Amino acid sequence: MALGLHALQHRGQEAAGIVSHGDNRFHAERRLGLVGDHFSDARVIARLPGRQAIGHNRYSTTGETILRNVQPLFAELDAGGLAVAHNGNLTNALTLRKELVRAGAICQSTSDTEVILHLVAQSRRPRIIDRFVNALREIEGAYALVALTENKLIGARDPLGIRPLILGELDGCYILTSETCALDIIGAKYVRDIDNGEVVVITEDGVQSLRPFPPQKMRPCIFEFVYFARPDSIVQGKSVYEVRKLMGVELARESLPEADVIVPVPDSGVPAAIGFSQASGIPFELGIIRNHYVGRTFIQPTQGVRELGVRMKHNANRSQIEGKRIVLVDDSLVRGTTSVKIVKMMRDAGAKEVHFRLACPPITHSDYYGIDTPEREKLLAATHTLEQMREFIGADSLAFLSVDGLYRAMGFEERDDLRPQFTDHCFTGDYPTLLTDLSGETPRQLSLIAEAS
Amino acid sequence: MALGLHALQHRGQEAAGIVSHGDNRFHAERRLGLVGDHFSDARVIARLPGRQAIGHNRYSTTGETILRNVQPLFAELDAGGLAVAHNGNLTNALTLRKELVRAGAICQSTSDTEVILHLVAQSRRPRIIDRFVNALREIEGAYALVALTENKLIGARDPLGIRPLILGELDGCYILTSETCALDIIGAKYVRDIDNGEVVVITEDGVQSLRPFPPQKMRPCIFEFVYFARPDSIVQGKSVYEVRKLMGVELARESLPEADVIVPVPDSGVPAAIGFSQASGIPFELGIIRNHYVGRTFIQPTQGVRELGVRMKHNANRSQIEGKRIVLVDDSLVRGTTSVKIVKMMRDAGAKEVHFRLACPPITHSDYYGIDTPEREKLLAATHTLEQMREFIGADSLAFLSVDGLYRAMGFEERDDLRPQFTDHCFTGDYPTLLTDLSGETPRQLSLIAEAS
Amino acid sequence: MALGLHALQHRGQEAAGIVSHGDNRFHAERRLGLVGDHFSDARVIARLPGRQAIGHNRYSTTGETILRNVQPLFAELDAGGLAVAHNGNLTNALTLRKELVRAGAICQSTSDTEVILHLVAQSRRPRIIDRFVNALREIEGAYALVALTENKLIGARDPLGIRPLILGELDGCYILTSETCALDIIGAKYVRDIDNGEVVVITEDGVQSLRPFPPQKMRPCIFEFVYFARPDSIVQGKSVYEVRKLMGVELARESLPEADVIVPVPDSGVPAAIGFSQASGIPFELGIIRNHYVGRTFIQPTQGVRELGVRMKHNANRSQIEGKRIVLVDDSLVRGTTSVKIVKMMRDAGAKEVHFRLACPPITHSDYYGIDTPEREKLLAATHTLEQMREFIGADSLAFLSVDGLYRAMGFEERDDLRPQFTDHCFTGDYPTLLTDLSGETPRQLSLIAEAS
Amino acid sequence: MALGLHALQHRGQEAAGIVSHGDNRFHAERRLGLVGDHFSDARVIARLPGRQAIGHNRYSTTGETILRNVQPLFAELDAGGLAVAHNGNLTNALTLRKELVRAGAICQSTSDTEVILHLVAQSRRPRIIDRFVNALREIEGAYALVALTENKLIGARDPLGIRPLILGELDGCYILTSETCALDIIGAKYVRDIDNGEVVVITEDGVQSLRPFPPQKMRPCIFEFVYFARPDSIVQGKSVYEVRKLMGVELARESLPEADVIVPVPDSGVPAAIGFSQASGIPFELGIIRNHYVGRTFIQPTQGVRELGVRMKHNANRSQIEGKRIVLVDDSLVRGTTSVKIVKMMRDAGAKEVHFRLACPPITHSDYYGIDTPEREKLLAATHTLEQMREFIGADSLAFLSVDGLYRAMGFEERDDLRPQFTDHCFTGDYPTLLTDLSGETPRQLSLIAEAS
Repeated sequence: MALGLHALQHRGQEAAGIVSHGDNRFHAERRLGLVGDHFSDARVIARLPGRQAIGHNRYSTTGETILRNVQPLFAELDAGGLAVAHNGNLTNALTLRKELVRAGAICQSTSDTEVILHLVAQSRRPRIIDRFVNALREIEGAYALVALTENKLIGARDPLGIRPLILGELDGCYILTSETCALDIIGAKYVRDIDNGEVVVITEDGVQSLRPFPPQKMRPCIFEFVYFARPDSIVQGKSVYEVRKLMGVELARESLPEADVIVPVPDSGVPAAIGFSQASGIPFELGIIRNHYVGRTFIQPTQGVRELGVRMKHNANRSQIEGKRIVLVDDSLVRGTTSVKIVKMMRDAGAKEVHFRLACPPITHSDYYGIDTPEREKLLAATHTLEQMREFIGADSLAFLSVDGLYRAMGFEERDDLRPQFTDHCFTGDYPTLLTDLSGETPRQLSLIAEAS
Repeated sequence: MALGLHALQHRGQEAAGIVSHGDNRFHAERRLGLVGDHFSDARVIARLPGRQAIGHNRYSTTGETILRNVQPLFAELDAGGLAVAHNGNLTNALTLRKELVRAGAICQSTSDTEVILHLVAQSRRPRIIDRFVNALREIEGAYALVALTENKLIGARDPLGIRPLILGELDGCYILTSETCALDIIGAKYVRDIDNGEVVVITEDGVQSLRPFPPQKMRPCIFEFVYFARPDSIVQGKSVYEVRKLMGVELARESLPEADVIVPVPDSGVPAAIGFSQASGIPFELGIIRNHYVGRTFIQPTQGVRELGVRMKHNANRSQIEGKRIVLVDDSLVRGTTSVKIVKMMRDAGAKEVHFRLACPPITHSDYYGIDTPEREKLLAATHTLEQMREFIGADSLAFLSVDGLYRAMGFEERDDLRPQFTDHCFTGDYPTLLTDLSGETPRQLSLIAEAS
Repeated sequence: MALGLHALQHRGQEAAGIVSHGDNRFHAERRLGLVGDHFSDARVIARLPGRQAIGHNRYSTTGETILRNVQPLFAELDAGGLAVAHNGNLTNALTLRKELVRAGAICQSTSDTEVILHLVAQSRRPRIIDRFVNALREIEGAYALVALTENKLIGARDPLGIRPLILGELDGCYILTSETCALDIIGAKYVRDIDNGEVVVITEDGVQSLRPFPPQKMRPCIFEFVYFARPDSIVQGKSVYEVRKLMGVELARESLPEADVIVPVPDSGVPAAIGFSQASGIPFELGIIRNHYVGRTFIQPTQGVRELGVRMKHNANRSQIEGKRIVLVDDSLVRGTTSVKIVKMMRDAGAKEVHFRLACPPITHSDYYGIDTPEREKLLAATHTLEQMREFIGADSLAFLSVDGLYRAMGFEERDDLRPQFTDHCFTGDYPTLLTDLSGETPRQLSLIAEAS
Repeated sequence: MALGLHALQHRGQEAAGIVSHGDNRFHAERRLGLVGDHFSDARVIARLPGRQAIGHNRYSTTGETILRNVQPLFAELDAGGLAVAHNGNLTNALTLRKELVRAGAICQSTSDTEVILHLVAQSRRPRIIDRFVNALREIEGAYALVALTENKLIGARDPLGIRPLILGELDGCYILTSETCALDIIGAKYVRDIDNGEVVVITEDGVQSLRPFPPQKMRPCIFEFVYFARPDSIVQGKSVYEVRKLMGVELARESLPEADVIVPVPDSGVPAAIGFSQASGIPFELGIIRNHYVGRTFIQPTQGVRELGVRMKHNANRSQIEGKRIVLVDDSLVRGTTSVKIVKMMRDAGAKEVHFRLACPPITHSDYYGIDTPEREKLLAATHTLEQMREFIGADSLAFLSVDGLYRAMGFEERDDLRPQFTDHCFTGDYPTLLTDLSGETPRQLSLIAEAS
């Protein structure tokens, strides 16, 4: 039998859900908030019998964070029950939804995942797996899907393999999950990556593989390595930690200032900063301490103080900063607002010079495949020159890793512009799929059903 | 503009919901529990802007009491949003649901009301009101429906008028509700009953009336008078309190024992007991006191005591019982379990004789139109003779009002067996509609989605 | 062994608490809200092991309704643990508290009951029972107290017996409670009333009686009969229901108008109205229906409608009112605000004449012994003549039962003005104890500790 | 005016409370759980008006974690209200409590802080500050106290200065807190450390200093540097981060194995590991990744898997471990249970050799001054030789920093055994105060009052 843990908490913290099948029926628990806030309660787990289950951590890119959008979504089809959880984002979901509603479908959620359920429900094929494949043929974008029927666990990865999906195994049970670290934590073994465009069907008899799409070269999302995946995961056969360190090494090679100390922006910049330090020989120090709890909130009776405090997730470690020339290393720069605060904090703590280094190229384009980036006009690098960015941030110098430097850290000599090795549109604007919904009008908003908190 | 309050709390206490439309969108609040438990919170009301709204109190006859079954149900149709609340019960809902699911519909609730929404969604007519009428043509059973669109409030009553629906008015706003007492409470005026088979459409321009069914004689449910409606309501032009007193008067005429005191079973038996006392000249006394709070639960540290206490909703008023010949009057007898306890309580309090009188005929058949009766085999009168019932209850004598006595209390000489004036199947077995679902198999149960409490 | 249920829900609905002793320690559960709202949960009951327990329903006359004021209060004394619950009100609690605080005591609650605990704690006597009696000697006012130690259940009634306290028995366990109806509900037997000034100590060996005060004539509170006790209780050997009916009988004798129908104000006026009807021969009808649920709140989207509705606990039963001369009967008149609304409701329902009759004398003085009456200036009868009251209420005539009529209903020829049979200060201003706190200044309010809701 | 933030979240995560004074009364909010779980709610903050406040994060060393033990504690004294919050632990609290109860005091909590309140309440001095000083003279142990009266904020540090307390300032408001990082976070300036044995009284007129104890050499707790304080704090004029790095440096000097990589146990071992790496030249790598969310709980349907998972707070970063000789660096070793798991995790990830290094001496004695250490028999170093510990943990080698090495990291040549510079009993058994309660019997447990969750 099989167990599927579709996503991990660093991949989505807004809501979590699990659907299991046992005692001849499906059981669901869905909550707003972190997995640990709700699913540590034994009574909740006890309401989820069965040996098959799928789970999901939500990180909304489409649809509001309300209870009825929390995955996995479930439908009672003519052919039996089906629960589906989805990592990624469809680029034609709104267009499909409009067609479905026009044909008489009633949508209960505002998530793109429900569109998949309706496509399965309306397929005329008798077997659920055939209906599921039919549905996949209609959707565009990036997806790792896990689905649960009464006797099958199904996994599917989009034709380009933009989002990751791997197969693991524990005590004879197969597991589908986004990252290897989820396998480590439960003591399971890594079996293999699901291929781009592959559909796997797991039953009591084992794993069956379907390939309903024409063969294509894989093009996984490079942002998994830069930012999204956990450092202890192995993605596409590469250690994320090692790759991030190499990005720091390449960065040091490309733009090394004279400095006394390398300071990572915690926690995202730590691996690149270690690489930068090792390549440059400049010592690595924790010049910024993360406010683990206090950052969430702090108590101040006066309004002015409150505003100061709430936004402060970090504190300068003055003993390592004062009177020094520091190199701040972070993984990426999106809006730049946090960077402004951090540079100012370094100066307030007495830094003599502040050199800011980013271990990836400038982010100039939005993502539409499941990474939560703002609209293009809010991306600092989309609207500012390098010098304007440096001035905005207030650093003495600013440098980004080059695109080819990024590919070198990934083990290639350079980017293959004809057949790029990765999905890297955030840095290059080269989107690998159609973006159908973008050309349409904005849909009317669905009615909110405000559930009990 | 219009405001629709579809049901009243004595008609359903398990759950409550309201949907309003304002600021160009729909807003919903749905909760398990009594209206007063949740909707007294100003913050909840503040989340329901708009001048049009429909509400519902749930009393489940189909579908479990879980949050996603709480009405009003809402759907975003191609033609715009639609919220529907339903009083009554459909007799072909399971059959229709099976057909809908086979055609690709995804049902989110287990309530029969969702079937209506899907029928509306799948209708090919362009106007919502025409789709709504199309849907009515497919459903069987008893219903008073209120529906809310972006600019219309719609009311509909089943072709026989089994369930009540009335039109009221307050400050130029029209109101649809089940009973006149709801109008009294908000200070609104009664305008008229909606006719059997009538559909009313309320807009800013007033009330428009449609009659999509062929004309039929009305046949309202007589149980509204016996048990379901509030005594201060006027149903079909008759005072419910007055009718219940007359049932007591007829009962006294039919079977008056020699006795010292008339004791109502509180609160249901009070009006009939007053009538019985006035017709017989035997004094009316509160021989049983209702445990308003304690009845819900009581505190006892030992198990034995707890069992005694929890089930006791009533307490004997010994000073009125001891040494006396008493006539207990109640409105109806269903399973008989409460009656057994009450007779025993009277004897424990020292009653010399206990005569039990029921102000309606024996209930021998289940209801399928929205009154919560058990299956037939659990109805005491379906499986016992009068003498067996007397023995079971432990009374010295037992008598029911006759069917013709019931019709006399309603102002008729007798029941017109050819064209009965009322829906009275509980007493007669004469069901006025098809019972399509009864002939089918039981459906597979939908998966439960256990929401946060 | 012994079980003490100190109070009943109609005697206090704001909060409830239970303390038990078992497994060699005390256990407590205290909640805001009705007993049934919290103590129906088996997990709560399971946290209260032991065969001895005391419980309390709070009805605040001193101290705010916050969690730390909820009784029973508990203290760990040098001589062992002690929990105390109190029905009634002390008239020198604030004065005593001030002295205690001056001497170094730390008060955690704002209730007068904590003062008793501190007096016990500071007594120098070695045995808890002696300390308890010492404490009783310092307090003034009205009280029925139950206390729990590791091996004793203690009951105490004030020297005049103002508040009731009775002894019952169930399966060899003794029970102390305020009213006989509490015994009926759990199937226990009434043993006897605790005497005024008596202290009973219940252990495994039985009941021991102490009489620490000089003998005095008992003077129980007559308001228990008029309003506070449940109709099915026997207080001081008299049926409360029967006494209330006799108040109605005396009232009819004293001031009978020409009328068509007797209408009780539900539920408080029902027994007197039955007596009034029987004495006068005018029929008794439910001309007012109580809105069991709706009264708590009702849903209206417009502000004006909401104001109308929320305050309406009752609805006119128009069929019994229209065109009739009605006699409204209620048990008592305090501020008169509800009466104004009810008279208006009768007129709106078409009453030809409205005669208001009260089954007790005018309430001209506040209570300080545990009945929640407003300050004197808010008592209608303290500031208005009979004619002014009639006009305020809007009735065609208004009459109260006379003081002697009240005593006649109680079985006496008249009030014995030299040695009054009852505590009746609300009607006569004759307070039977010192009112020490009234002469002092108002104390500074204790800081609120706002607990988690 | 003044604001006191007494403690920081890393110093106590079980409960949090705040008491403020404003509008002429005190206001309190106390909750179980993290500050951020409750005090981020604007409604909670709005219930805390006033310009003076004290707060507390609880970390229980005495008394259970129930709501009534949550600090600050408050008492209404004869001289006015007083709220007290306490960091540290008294060593004669049980003895004092017994005496107080014997004299008639009623204790509501099981915390040692309430004892201080009672001592203040029972002092005969007229001014609160004199009463407070009186109370300090009776207590033994370690404490940093902040207290709030109607117009004063008081701070006090024990005669040896075991627990830290510092004075800060923001916009003219004085702040008392345990660590400088709390000042940084709200943008306040560090003014000075409160001296050992000093009492400061902060009013509108400024800061007044009292010194009620005879002068003594300060002896602050060295565990603040080893483990308890945040790395970005300056304690006694020293950077905690710098000191911890120096502990790593000294450790590398004392016992450097041949190895390929230095791996910190996150997050506690990071600063010492950086020092160790810099002193040894062996590269520092994140060989262990902390499971930020997953660690709190994880979802597994089978019991066996759950047991594995829940305890796993860390995951090996296999790419940095496999085939390597690693040095694990942690700040301290208490029970050793976590270390066992971490060493095993390293071996499972393929480590060739695992050398464990602790940046402090063996912990052989329990703390009684506010650091949560287990009883002595559960301290691994109290019952095992170095070789036995190595074997228990499963490492290839094990070494601790020497006591003199620790003092060298603190800037001294060695420990001054005659007049030790620090409170270091955990490593030496040299307790600097009486431990009065230890000689007494265990007290009977106070009754639990189980509050609403």
